[in-house]
Amino acid sequence: MDKEHLLFERLKNYVRSDYYPYHMPGHKRRTGWNINPWQIDITEIDGFDNLHHPEGILRESMDWAASVYGSDKTYYLVNGSTCGILSAISAAVPSGGKLLMSRNCHKSAYHGVILNQLKISTIYPQIVEKLGIQGGITPEIVDKSLNIHTDASAVLIVSPTYDGIVSDVRTIAEIVHRHKIPLIVDEAHGAHFPFTSSLPSALDCGADIVIQSLHKTLPSLTQTAVLHVKNRYIDIERLERYLQIYQSSSPSYLLIGSIENCIYQAQKDGTAKWDLFYKKLSSFHQELSGLNCLTIPTQSSLAGKDAVFRYDESKVLISAKNCFKKILNRKNTRRIPAEKSVDGMQLANYFRNDYHLEMEMAAADYVLAIMTAYDTDEAFQRLRDSLIDLDRKLYRDDNCREGSLSLACQISGASVSTPSDDIDIADSLNRESESIPLKDCVNRISAEFITLYPPGIPVIIPGEIITEPVLLQILDYKDRGFPIQGPADININVLKVQKES
Amino acid sequence: MDKEHLLFERLKNYVRSDYYPYHMPGHKRRTGWNINPWQIDITEIDGFDNLHHPEGILRESMDWAASVYGSDKTYYLVNGSTCGILSAISAAVPSGGKLLMSRNCHKSAYHGVILNQLKISTIYPQIVEKLGIQGGITPEIVDKSLNIHTDASAVLIVSPTYDGIVSDVRTIAEIVHRHKIPLIVDEAHGAHFPFTSSLPSALDCGADIVIQSLHKTLPSLTQTAVLHVKNRYIDIERLERYLQIYQSSSPSYLLIGSIENCIYQAQKDGTAKWDLFYKKLSSFHQELSGLNCLTIPTQSSLAGKDAVFRYDESKVLISAKNCFKKILNRKNTRRIPAEKSVDGMQLANYFRNDYHLEMEMAAADYVLAIMTAYDTDEAFQRLRDSLIDLDRKLYRDDNCREGSLSLACQISGASVSTPSDDIDIADSLNRESESIPLKDCVNRISAEFITLYPPGIPVIIPGEIITEPVLLQILDYKDRGFPIQGPADININVLKVQKES
Repeated sequence: MDKEHLLFERLKNYVRSDYYPYHMPGHKRRTGWNINPWQIDITEIDGFDNLHHPEGILRESMDWAASVYGSDKTYYLVNGSTCGILSAISAAVPSGGKLLMSRNCHKSAYHGVILNQLKISTIYPQIVEKLGIQGGITPEIVDKSLNIHTDASAVLIVSPTYDGIVSDVRTIAEIVHRHKIPLIVDEAHGAHFPFTSSLPSALDCGADIVIQSLHKTLPSLTQTAVLHVKNRYIDIERLERYLQIYQSSSPSYLLIGSIENCIYQAQKDGTAKWDLFYKKLSSFHQELSGLNCLTIPTQSSLAGKDAVFRYDESKVLISAKNCFKKILNRKNTRRIPAEKSVDGMQLANYFRNDYHLEMEMAAADYVLAIMTAYDTDEAFQRLRDSLIDLDRKLYRDDNCREGSLSLACQISGASVSTPSDDIDIADSLNRESESIPLKDCVNRISAEFITLYPPGIPVIIPGEIITEPVLLQILDYKDRGFPIQGPADININVLKVQKES
Repeated sequence: MDKEHLLFERLKNYVRSDYYPYHMPGHKRRTGWNINPWQIDITEIDGFDNLHHPEGILRESMDWAASVYGSDKTYYLVNGSTCGILSAISAAVPSGGKLLMSRNCHKSAYHGVILNQLKISTIYPQIVEKLGIQGGITPEIVDKSLNIHTDASAVLIVSPTYDGIVSDVRTIAEIVHRHKIPLIVDEAHGAHFPFTSSLPSALDCGADIVIQSLHKTLPSLTQTAVLHVKNRYIDIERLERYLQIYQSSSPSYLLIGSIENCIYQAQKDGTAKWDLFYKKLSSFHQELSGLNCLTIPTQSSLAGKDAVFRYDESKVLISAKNCFKKILNRKNTRRIPAEKSVDGMQLANYFRNDYHLEMEMAAADYVLAIMTAYDTDEAFQRLRDSLIDLDRKLYRDDNCREGSLSLACQISGASVSTPSDDIDIADSLNRESESIPLKDCVNRISAEFITLYPPGIPVIIPGEIITEPVLLQILDYKDRGFPIQGPADININVLKVQKES
């Protein structure tokens, strides 16, 4: 290993470049201060308490955080939202029990299901057809599902989604509570909600456990999160037992300090900082209303339809659906249409290579730019300018429908709006399986996860049938070089499916 | 929350004090450099790979690390040894299967047992009677156990122990491999072994999975660890699946970079740095050979007995067994014996208050000072001077046997050297239980863990009978104010035990 190849050296070099981050972490590498992280890196010595058995300053700090958020208890998490989701599921559902969960949950939720050998019934989100993205979860489908699956011990939904779609958590919580079970909300992407008057936080809306990734939108170091709980339907003792299991017994004081500092800062700023940011965003959207090809959804274009209760505009979703790149021939006179419409991966490459803007995610036919209150004015400016410039280089043909399928179609159960049957993932993983060529997998039952990362939502979970549209979609992702994870065969030439009896 | 009460402010103040750390992390807050940690805190963007699906620079980095250690694969862990132990157990033993484990394992090992609903048979370490600490695991007891528990899928031992006792891993590995199952070694406290010629590393001795906490003895940030694997008896695919489950899907690049940097530094230093350190330690021990009361074990005083294969002298174990504080009366002429012998907690307080030296752990009648190659010469000097000074203030009475019982007695199964019956912890946790006053628990079966922290080894695990000596020991710990964790009643007035049928 040469010194210049060390990760730290690469990071230091990258920081010096002019690439602007439209991605996590939310602090945009602009907060903090110079310290020697090793110098304040301690262990559980006298006076510094113990995260897993807090009785002193960490107890006081987490009690203070609970008062900031209005929770009964707030826990600092040093193993990301991942350990919060695992703990919430493990605490709320007995081993072997049933969880009602939205199909668009993060893979960590499915991991929690496997570890506890749970049965799941999945609730499908709606689809925002014009963008090919997931919509919200309707209260009606939660109600319908709970009336069928009366043996469910808890409900888990994700809101906001990776794309910024907020569901009606208040109404959903009321429905769930009528069944006297807890509602868990994965609010990983909405850690800033409590600090703006623009958006409703899940805790305020009555959720019983809420997990927030602090680093995604607030100025905390990556891998930090918080879990808030309301006592009503949750066994706190059991929850705390699992929080100890899924987190290092040597938690980093640097990460813990970063969590506390982040909440301190956010509270001090009040709602003013984020409210101003959302105002700036509105202007930003207005300035871009003249785009001819690219589409960027807003609160007013989305909310109220497709179970979109609210839309978080800080997720700047740039859709190139039905857009094509103009190609100038040698004489610069005639425009020749490209063969394929622009996909998310190409779009991300344009931003990266032509404008030095790094996006959060490339999806089927859109990219996602994450903006936060910690972005500079220059960040707005550069994204606006590049969008206007890029838009000029495209043309749009809405009659052309050859664009790729989208993740949303699958995880909305191909528009099925009825509750699903039970799926037992752990059982599916243990059944006899065989590896067969991917192209031959139509109508077979998968024995593996197939996950597009980001966003980290499984396209297929073990126990699900691989329908033809889904297979075509996976082949298309593969073809376009999207990052697919899950299968044992990392090239995804073969896939494990259940043996047919 | 006032700014001066923020954890970061407390840490900065603490660093400015003259308290010297004889505890983890091993870098002793002396390595590293000034950076803004937020500035290099990124996510999985282009060019920076993905820890959970490494194909680029992180793949190369971990391959390079494997070549440094001589493993087939080495994994960087951002959720501490905890996630390594959980993953190793989950990968090596099928759900509901049996694990043969040494009773002195860290609580994370028991957590792995619970998560996978395993049955365990425990192997008891020997006892070093004169110090009241655990000795090593004999190859003979492993052999005997495996011949009885032929259904065990893996063997897990801890070596070195928290106190520095190294077992004969090579012979144990040979025995385990005769049964064609893997040996997992929790080498959390021996991350420096590969970088000294003084001590044998478990990987070199033939272990199949080895987990090392980098921060405990090497210059990496707290919460970082590595897992090494040899392919022979391990399903790599299964192992990797669990490493993804137990670690954040947003791993910190700061922690990852710290791991890589630590290995880079250790490799560059070769064995020279640690070999020199062990030479200094020898001189240190020689200079202290004149102590009249306090005992500090060495390689030559321990090795070869009580299954102590080797002893890691960097764990400076300061025993006050049978030591009493001289009390000078007003006329300063007559010595009056104190009522109770000096215990570990008092010893730690003397060091903290009188000399501003912070110890790693206070046990029944000893304290543990962790020294590393990153300690200063002043560190040796201050500890030596304080030991000589303190020793003068004590007297010793070896006829007095009223000293407290020790953890070692319990977890050596009260000297039982035969293999244990199966214990099913998960089942024990699920059985009907009742909370009764602690003092009434003799001969009842515990439904809770009782763990002294540090070292984090359970004194009682669910399913074990609470014998009278053990109860007296727990009461004694409580009385002396030792940090006990586990029971739902944090004051430990009542304990959950299984209902008697």
